[in-house]
Amino acid sequence: MTYCVGLKTDHGLVFMSDTRTNAGVDNISTFRKMTSWQVPGERMITLMTAGNLATTQAVISLLEERTKAEVDRSPSILEQPSMFQVARLVGDTLKEVIAGHAQSGQVADSAFHATILVGGQIAPGPPRLFLVYPEGNFIEASGDTPFFQIGETKYGRPILVRAYDPGMGFEEAIKLLLVSFDSTIKANLSVGLPLDFATYRTDSFQLGREGRISADDPYFRAISDGWGDALKAALDGLPDFSFED
Amino acid sequence: MTYCVGLKTDHGLVFMSDTRTNAGVDNISTFRKMTSWQVPGERMITLMTAGNLATTQAVISLLEERTKAEVDRSPSILEQPSMFQVARLVGDTLKEVIAGHAQSGQVADSAFHATILVGGQIAPGPPRLFLVYPEGNFIEASGDTPFFQIGETKYGRPILVRAYDPGMGFEEAIKLLLVSFDSTIKANLSVGLPLDFATYRTDSFQLGREGRISADDPYFRAISDGWGDALKAALDGLPDFSFED
Repeated sequence: MTYCVGLKTDHGLVFMSDTRTNAGVDNISTFRKMTSWQVPGERMITLMTAGNLATTQAVISLLEERTKAEVDRSPSILEQPSMFQVARLVGDTLKEVIAGHAQSGQVADSAFHATILVGGQIAPGPPRLFLVYPEGNFIEASGDTPFFQIGETKYGRPILVRAYDPGMGFEEAIKLLLVSFDSTIKANLSVGLPLDFATYRTDSFQLGREGRISADDPYFRAISDGWGDALKAALDGLPDFSFED
Repeated sequence: MTYCVGLKTDHGLVFMSDTRTNAGVDNISTFRKMTSWQVPGERMITLMTAGNLATTQAVISLLEERTKAEVDRSPSILEQPSMFQVARLVGDTLKEVIAGHAQSGQVADSAFHATILVGGQIAPGPPRLFLVYPEGNFIEASGDTPFFQIGETKYGRPILVRAYDPGMGFEEAIKLLLVSFDSTIKANLSVGLPLDFATYRTDSFQLGREGRISADDPYFRAISDGWGDALKAALDGLPDFSFED
């Protein structure tokens, strides 16, 4: 499993992904699931993947045209005229890779499935955020649904639903995401630290802040330890139930 | 889907279940998923079910021997000498019902699956809480894992993990469960109000408080509305993230 969230705010986009991959519970590794491309002043695209690692790595490599010699590369993702076309390219590539593996004799093609979040901005369009399905089709985040989750989405969803606010700043958004990730990590062994994050400010056309938060990061520890107490205090603050007599 | 929680505290047992059943999203009904039996002074047993409704209703009917005329009934669940034997009887009955349906020509016997929480106390034993699997085997709640969830367990789990306290009173426990149910109801259409609850005080050998909380219950509304604000305040209270410069 995996857990990735892409968030659209009034200020731009915020991305966070975990780094754990596993085949069973006894074969775990750390892989980066976030990839960004940019042409400063023109476009910035960030992509996060969940699902079969062979599939997602093949998709990234195809998008970067890593099949060609380094000097001949001209990543096709940097040639699309709009974010919509980028999402279409990602969807088509994903569908092809899954179909290619499935044709090689395996019946259970769902084993090769993957889901991708892709967000960014290409001038002169606005920032957009898409969720791309294994079938190659995709949906876009809107005001009603301003964030997408992929992977193990359930444990971390309630806090996002309740505390997301379109006006929140990047630092506040990262705090919110850390709480959501912490709830997930506590409940699902297949989601694990370190966490990668990236921000994109609307109309900056270049990647904003990015970084990696590890298990021994003092801020993450403060959030993880503090959240339990904060939740208990929040519960205590609610009116008490009483049996009617 | 369904959501039921059984909680073991220092004071006894607390049960809560939703009442929504559905076949698809356009065929929903309200069914009680909690059943209790008692012989005051000797035993109290509460059972909650998740899964195929035909299966769970058949299990309850068999446990109550509803196949017999009313005067001849002597529910077998009231004749077991211990909670362990009750759990075994429930498991065997569940396994039989599922096997009976599966034999009738259906291949996908998982469609008939159900999971059952059974808790209570039979003198002179202590209160015990079991989770019974479709295969008929079961596990018991202990100090390390003092509660069981069945059905749609993920959304409501983080708050239980963080805020459960073995010393909490029944009214506090019901408040905690309502928050957990509210988070689930907000995220999954197949879990719905009204909610049934019941409490059992250790060594009382009779059902404690029980009741039903409906969508227009003013206390539930206060919890549901207040929890969003309480979560936001809890998040605000955590230290702020800041990008290192």
